[in-house]
Amino acid sequence: MKQIENLLGFRESIKVVDATLRDGGLVNDFFFEDDFVNELYKANVRAGIDYMEFGYRASKKVFDESKFGKWKFSSDEHIRQIVGENNSDLKLAIMADIGRHDKDDFDQKVNSPVDLVRVAAYIQQMPEAIDMVEDAAKKGYETSCNIMAISHANDNEIKVALDMLGKSPVDVIYIVDSFGSIYPEQMTRIADMYLEFAAKYGKKVGVHAHNNQQLAFANTIEACGDGVDWLDATYLSMGRGAGNCAMELLIGFLKNPKYNVYPIFRFIEEHMIELRKKGVVWGYDLQYLMTGLLNQHPRSAIQFTKEKRTDYSEFYKDLLI
Amino acid sequence: MKQIENLLGFRESIKVVDATLRDGGLVNDFFFEDDFVNELYKANVRAGIDYMEFGYRASKKVFDESKFGKWKFSSDEHIRQIVGENNSDLKLAIMADIGRHDKDDFDQKVNSPVDLVRVAAYIQQMPEAIDMVEDAAKKGYETSCNIMAISHANDNEIKVALDMLGKSPVDVIYIVDSFGSIYPEQMTRIADMYLEFAAKYGKKVGVHAHNNQQLAFANTIEACGDGVDWLDATYLSMGRGAGNCAMELLIGFLKNPKYNVYPIFRFIEEHMIELRKKGVVWGYDLQYLMTGLLNQHPRSAIQFTKEKRTDYSEFYKDLLI
Repeated sequence: MKQIENLLGFRESIKVVDATLRDGGLVNDFFFEDDFVNELYKANVRAGIDYMEFGYRASKKVFDESKFGKWKFSSDEHIRQIVGENNSDLKLAIMADIGRHDKDDFDQKVNSPVDLVRVAAYIQQMPEAIDMVEDAAKKGYETSCNIMAISHANDNEIKVALDMLGKSPVDVIYIVDSFGSIYPEQMTRIADMYLEFAAKYGKKVGVHAHNNQQLAFANTIEACGDGVDWLDATYLSMGRGAGNCAMELLIGFLKNPKYNVYPIFRFIEEHMIELRKKGVVWGYDLQYLMTGLLNQHPRSAIQFTKEKRTDYSEFYKDLLI
Repeated sequence: MKQIENLLGFRESIKVVDATLRDGGLVNDFFFEDDFVNELYKANVRAGIDYMEFGYRASKKVFDESKFGKWKFSSDEHIRQIVGENNSDLKLAIMADIGRHDKDDFDQKVNSPVDLVRVAAYIQQMPEAIDMVEDAAKKGYETSCNIMAISHANDNEIKVALDMLGKSPVDVIYIVDSFGSIYPEQMTRIADMYLEFAAKYGKKVGVHAHNNQQLAFANTIEACGDGVDWLDATYLSMGRGAGNCAMELLIGFLKNPKYNVYPIFRFIEEHMIELRKKGVVWGYDLQYLMTGLLNQHPRSAIQFTKEKRTDYSEFYKDLLI
């Protein structure tokens, strides 16, 4: 059993990653105003957040630049316009989505404000993911790898992927509950499996949860209690579909005095309530509970949301087919 | 560690209690329309719910009848108008709130449609609570007792209360997270303490959670995994402040084939979305997270909500004084 002391103590090794722009960008096609990004950066610095993920660095050969906001591509120039020389303790991250990235878009670390390259891949894309990890590590970046959709993979497949990643230069291996289908007691078991490989190869483990069943925060602190050190969260849970672990919940829970929840509340009040009023929609709702419960990709629930449907029971019946 | 088999298996001893009218009534002063209550009753029967709590049986000597809907008082007559002879497997409950009840309002069980009398009391009211439990048990009712606000009590006080209840005729002793301040790893420890006394005296243990930190469902299934059998939930989390464990999440999680989540989705779609549109407000929001985080009574957050304030960071600063 985890010890009660852990609730008032803290581990120096914990790193909190703000994924608001990246996962949140999935609900507004990355059209964040510069003021929003500027203030989010400042809030993260004030709140003592460890890493801020700016967005994807998607390939312009794959995506039409005119159809997305700049944080779909998160160039070094765009980031510098926000952070300047980033004279802060906040480290900066971007995500490479395997199959939709281009290694050539990643300069040498010495020329870039980015500290961490986060690689996201489905389990069958692991060789390509590791190729990307190796390239980024060679260029001087810290690296992490998200194995996505593990609730659709079996333990043997996952162990093969963990072994491959263990042998790679990756620094952090992420548990990702892509469909928000994982319960805390499953999270414990998954964390144990990841931590075993991590210990063998000297890696860190992270967790990225989704809130389909209102378990994103619970799963994150469950994993944290098990020894997972890298914790993803987003302000006001902003993220695809049901959203993520709420930053305000996570920072409220973590007791390291370097963290401060007040700037988070302030940013939400001044910048995110407005976003909602403008019609940007995300967060827990019945359609996301349903896809989570049934361990399905949320795309049908996202469509249901876009169409402003409220015939939940019909939607549920369709999911069961 | 809890076993993975538990996630697909089920315990016959689990009882699900729908507290929508009672805890939900706290947000609309119990002004539910008869059609709503009728359909909720039918939905509970179809969903295989074990108990339906109709409301408080508050004393009319304490509360002005003209200022509340009928489910503040939940007379046997009102209940019969909904359930007739209740020819179903669904058992019926009402709540007696210690200090605001009157024993004389409770007829002999043989004359009443009510099966279970739920007694709610603060820990310092335990003698009066036990007096009520004894009276109800003598009249032929099943009884349960909620010890409220335990996050403001210490373990020694709670143990004294558990011992008193153990020696009483009460059937079920409830863990109540009144302020939504308890984390799952605390819930495990609390459940162990309650279960130890329950085993000694041959009682059952229940859990009633609040969603201030989006942990009502997580804490409920945590307690369930620890051996707590009686699980409170409300449709769409309807309840005071941040609301409760959502019935749709709980029934989605429980695997006993007697439960059926579809009628729950259907009821929410047809009757509760409307309620929200009419301006009835409940559920997770930053002000409730704040009082939960700080282990405070939600009354200031409820007031903040009523005043439609959005200056969250000011509110937070006031709570810290």
